Amino acid sequence: MSIYRALKKECCEANKALPARNIVDLTFGNVSIVDRARRVVAIKPSGVPYESLVPNDIVILRLDARPDANFQFDLERIKIEGSLRPSSDTPTHIRLYQAFGDIGAVVHTHSRNATAYSQAGLPIPCMGTTHADYFYGEVPVTRPIAPEEIERHYEWETANVIVERFEDLDPNKVNAVLFHGHAPFVWGPSGAKAVETAFALEIIAEMTMKTQLLKPDAMSLSQAQLDKHYLRKHGANAYYGQR
Amino acid sequence: MSIYRALKKECCEANKALPARNIVDLTFGNVSIVDRARRVVAIKPSGVPYESLVPNDIVILRLDARPDANFQFDLERIKIEGSLRPSSDTPTHIRLYQAFGDIGAVVHTHSRNATAYSQAGLPIPCMGTTHADYFYGEVPVTRPIAPEEIERHYEWETANVIVERFEDLDPNKVNAVLFHGHAPFVWGPSGAKAVETAFALEIIAEMTMKTQLLKPDAMSLSQAQLDKHYLRKHGANAYYGQR
Amino acid sequence: MSIYRALKKECCEANKALPARNIVDLTFGNVSIVDRARRVVAIKPSGVPYESLVPNDIVILRLDARPDANFQFDLERIKIEGSLRPSSDTPTHIRLYQAFGDIGAVVHTHSRNATAYSQAGLPIPCMGTTHADYFYGEVPVTRPIAPEEIERHYEWETANVIVERFEDLDPNKVNAVLFHGHAPFVWGPSGAKAVETAFALEIIAEMTMKTQLLKPDAMSLSQAQLDKHYLRKHGANAYYGQR
Amino acid sequence: MSIYRALKKECCEANKALPARNIVDLTFGNVSIVDRARRVVAIKPSGVPYESLVPNDIVILRLDARPDANFQFDLERIKIEGSLRPSSDTPTHIRLYQAFGDIGAVVHTHSRNATAYSQAGLPIPCMGTTHADYFYGEVPVTRPIAPEEIERHYEWETANVIVERFEDLDPNKVNAVLFHGHAPFVWGPSGAKAVETAFALEIIAEMTMKTQLLKPDAMSLSQAQLDKHYLRKHGANAYYGQR
Repeated sequence: MSIYRALKKECCEANKALPARNIVDLTFGNVSIVDRARRVVAIKPSGVPYESLVPNDIVILRLDARPDANFQFDLERIKIEGSLRPSSDTPTHIRLYQAFGDIGAVVHTHSRNATAYSQAGLPIPCMGTTHADYFYGEVPVTRPIAPEEIERHYEWETANVIVERFEDLDPNKVNAVLFHGHAPFVWGPSGAKAVETAFALEIIAEMTMKTQLLKPDAMSLSQAQLDKHYLRKHGANAYYGQR
Repeated sequence: MSIYRALKKECCEANKALPARNIVDLTFGNVSIVDRARRVVAIKPSGVPYESLVPNDIVILRLDARPDANFQFDLERIKIEGSLRPSSDTPTHIRLYQAFGDIGAVVHTHSRNATAYSQAGLPIPCMGTTHADYFYGEVPVTRPIAPEEIERHYEWETANVIVERFEDLDPNKVNAVLFHGHAPFVWGPSGAKAVETAFALEIIAEMTMKTQLLKPDAMSLSQAQLDKHYLRKHGANAYYGQR
Repeated sequence: MSIYRALKKECCEANKALPARNIVDLTFGNVSIVDRARRVVAIKPSGVPYESLVPNDIVILRLDARPDANFQFDLERIKIEGSLRPSSDTPTHIRLYQAFGDIGAVVHTHSRNATAYSQAGLPIPCMGTTHADYFYGEVPVTRPIAPEEIERHYEWETANVIVERFEDLDPNKVNAVLFHGHAPFVWGPSGAKAVETAFALEIIAEMTMKTQLLKPDAMSLSQAQLDKHYLRKHGANAYYGQR
Repeated sequence: MSIYRALKKECCEANKALPARNIVDLTFGNVSIVDRARRVVAIKPSGVPYESLVPNDIVILRLDARPDANFQFDLERIKIEGSLRPSSDTPTHIRLYQAFGDIGAVVHTHSRNATAYSQAGLPIPCMGTTHADYFYGEVPVTRPIAPEEIERHYEWETANVIVERFEDLDPNKVNAVLFHGHAPFVWGPSGAKAVETAFALEIIAEMTMKTQLLKPDAMSLSQAQLDKHYLRKHGANAYYGQR
């Protein structure tokens, strides 16, 4: 029996949670999970419907992979287990795990409201406590990817554009990014938590869009209230939920 | 057997009605019920999913509680029954019951359209009869909570900001408020009625938002029609529904 | 057995179709059916949930009723069958049947998008073939009801404001109106058809609202295309559907 | 047994997929399938509800049909099999198959967001990768149909207006058009794929509408990224999905 059995199961369940949360259409979304001890990444196979997905469909790949000198990235060569082709977004996931050393899962969706912000090239400002409960400050938007980056290696460079955007941000406090002209990437400690955050991002995007349509110059939450809400749920003295 | 059995049951059912009405996402919402004869408040435990909630999870706390001289408010010390931690919003609920002596239940949600108005810092004007059937005039918005209030005791002061907003308003005729940068609080004579009003607020927010997007200077309902609709349902001569 | 049995059944089914079509919230809607041969109107009882409605709950009232000289309108006195109180909107329905001699059923809802137009005081212009398939030209909006009309007899005068708006319109070609500050009234030859038209109105309102948000000066459909689509479904030479 | 049995089954299933995908209301939509070897078109009957549709209801007509010299187009005369009247849009479908020689199925819906763009007379610009995965560039809008075209033969000329719009476009790379004042037409190699594309069009319309409301001058995707995404799924070197 595969030593990646539990990993595949978690990855499969997290992927199936995407349509259950109503944050994917068609096959526009995928979740991966990293096992840093074993140095592998588990990810959804490409173009497979969520309903029919089973743990054995999940593909296991090497965490330390990267494109070669000619910017070729042969996913079959880094595959450890799995008979299907991994998501075409696999290099983006792998690169994010390499760059953000504390994260355990990555979720990519084209959820509709967060994607609208991505397409507009606008960040989602923190305008309320729902936002502050999940993200410590605005959810940033990247620059557009450049033609030469697309040419070099599209999916790998997608992650590099994200990493560049987080130069002065802490990915453990802002667990999501809007890719300009594309859609959101979200991460977290586990598959379940990252999917929950991707869902929270979508409803926050909806509420903030409506806020901005009602009042284009609506003000952001005060720093004091942002601190309060974020730390009420996330800090050392968090007091939300059961212990 | 607990003497609070009926109270816990009503509170549990009212909390479960929130997702049934589609006015909460994740765990962003809670309902409390007051028993003024016994001087207790029943409230949802913190961070527990609605689906798995059972009456025995409901926490019973003292109605007359308040923060100490150092603005500490130890919820465990005022707990009468219940093994779980009460909602982190408990002090807000308790304070509202103390200030608004006629209300029987308090509902807090982050329902999406009402929250958009809260984030925009805008009241919901009374633009139609749907609104007038539930609220006697605009649904007001508070000022933002101040950093020093957050510092003192966030949840307790949240209620005080609401109470301040109602200085010249009758909480028995306007059963809801939009907390600036946060979300709505709604109240009523019973858990079921308060949840119904929270749902009405959400659809009224949706319709009024669309009205204002279609016509930014749309006029409010006349005082005569507001009186007519509100009193048709609420006055001594109400003639809506079965007797 | 009641001679109104079939009438009550049709009326009950048409009322239950409102939530099935997702065009009512709470108890904001009602359908009546007229039997012109027997000179009676069948209508939903007031404030009764749709789910529990049974044919025997339907109230039968006299078609020729009207307020007395003091503008009192005692619905109990004109009731022919039924133990429940009829909808508070009953006088509006009765007056519409008296004024529009060819209609067989009246539907009143607070469906969200049509209500937004009503609250904005704006008609729904005919911007596409979906609209032209149902309504021969724009769906008009009334003026606001005047305080003295509210004072005289609110529900009866509501119908008179609608009738005034149709002075130069044919209610058989434009089967709906938006009541300013209130919500739509829709009518048709049968309960089922009137509910279908109320649903069509709601989706047309949604699509036209989005059209106007995208392009505030979007042009209306040409007269030639309006004629074509309306007559394709409604004229003597209609060729849509099965014969 | 009919030699068109498989064709009718495919056509019936594709029509039933329209409400399953939530892209039709009432009976506003139809799918046809062409069998170029047998030179026939299979299409939904007019005005029949999707739920009750069975393969035997599907109408089979001649692919090479066209209006006579007086612009009369007797659908009964070109019918090969079927007891019901075909969709009133049949001439549009037939003409599209004649003009676009590679397509296998045509879908017509009044899906709400795509229809809003049609009513606004605006194309859907390619603002993100979701769009680029399905359409190689903007989804174009036609000019309005002229009164004399409506007079001549409305449904036939509808297709001609579409064909005119594609004079400089490749219908195999842009599989959809927005008919001004009407609604979208979508096509593809099979019924299932064309319905999938009609659904993709609807969610892209929703996301792009929200993008444009957030930022009216939002920029389109770069040509490099459009090429990348479209070709990742559609080109000779496509690497999305399983082989």
